[in-house]
Amino acid sequence: MDDRLKKQLNFILEIDKLKNVFRQTHLSGKGRNENDAEHSWHMAVMAFLLKEYSNEQVDISKVMLMCLIHDIVEIDAGDTYAYDNKKLKSQSEREQKAKMRLFSILPDDQRAELIELFDEFEANNTVESKFAHAMDNFQPLILNNSNNGGDWREHNVTISQIYKRQNMTKSGSDVLFEVTDNIIKENIKKGNLATDE
Amino acid sequence: MDDRLKKQLNFILEIDKLKNVFRQTHLSGKGRNENDAEHSWHMAVMAFLLKEYSNEQVDISKVMLMCLIHDIVEIDAGDTYAYDNKKLKSQSEREQKAKMRLFSILPDDQRAELIELFDEFEANNTVESKFAHAMDNFQPLILNNSNNGGDWREHNVTISQIYKRQNMTKSGSDVLFEVTDNIIKENIKKGNLATDE
Repeated sequence: MDDRLKKQLNFILEIDKLKNVFRQTHLSGKGRNENDAEHSWHMAVMAFLLKEYSNEQVDISKVMLMCLIHDIVEIDAGDTYAYDNKKLKSQSEREQKAKMRLFSILPDDQRAELIELFDEFEANNTVESKFAHAMDNFQPLILNNSNNGGDWREHNVTISQIYKRQNMTKSGSDVLFEVTDNIIKENIKKGNLATDE
Repeated sequence: MDDRLKKQLNFILEIDKLKNVFRQTHLSGKGRNENDAEHSWHMAVMAFLLKEYSNEQVDISKVMLMCLIHDIVEIDAGDTYAYDNKKLKSQSEREQKAKMRLFSILPDDQRAELIELFDEFEANNTVESKFAHAMDNFQPLILNNSNNGGDWREHNVTISQIYKRQNMTKSGSDVLFEVTDNIIKENIKKGNLATDE
């Protein structure tokens, strides 16, 4: 087997570990914690099905690919809960290190390609990355809402915390932000979100 | 919320269940059984990274989408192990029923689009479906090989059974079939595959 294919297969086997990176979100039906591979799969399918709601026309295959690879760095860096302020501070440094180690398993051209795509997602200033971020927020929101906000209650997530995060959906999709806003308001009514001090 | 978006969100929540459909394949590192959502995610990333080995040039975003949705029918139909001859007989009927119920949750145009894509995958006579099938075979092969063929040993999979299945990879990718063939031969040597009666 030539060196290029060997590197590709090593990477493919390495990313199997993403299935063991568990998130704070629970599956619908009050199921177990979700892992990053499942979350990424769900986001990519959602992106395809909801693309008509992007504020601007997107290259949907690029968005889907972004969704599929955006969490691979968490194999080394671990999952950072969206409302964990302490871990959020060190997130970028941990993920930059992980990015270099993991994507460098690939041949040079594919390493560069995936790093570029990951960096674009992180920078969040293109139409594709904005829509991918909308999926990254909207996917756990839908699951958590289906479980009556259990994840928010468990972590005492406050109203201002959730709006700070979910407001980002607006720059990807006004329509999906409207749905988000309604879901948040319902959950405030139900007492599933803490009021700020 | 309008009816179209409501249908889309209903489907998106319904397919969350794919994360609870477990397969016979185990994760690398002799991990737990893999589920269909994880398998689909892995296949889609692999398709993107290995596209240069397709026998013919493919529309890679179509292949990736096929990979992402090809197992959704198993939410109703359950997983059918590639070497379970009894269940294989009823597989098609179970999956056709599931296909109609599940994709009909979507708005008409998207139902038609996903059914067309699923049918193309099943018919396996386009370059995209052939390459997607190569991924569907190659992904569990790599995991199982990394676990010293444990899944084959557990199910007493025979040499002719595995070649019957894995030969399909050839029509998608000669290069990946060569890798497959080498992996099978190594596992025969190690005694991980049963000889036929």
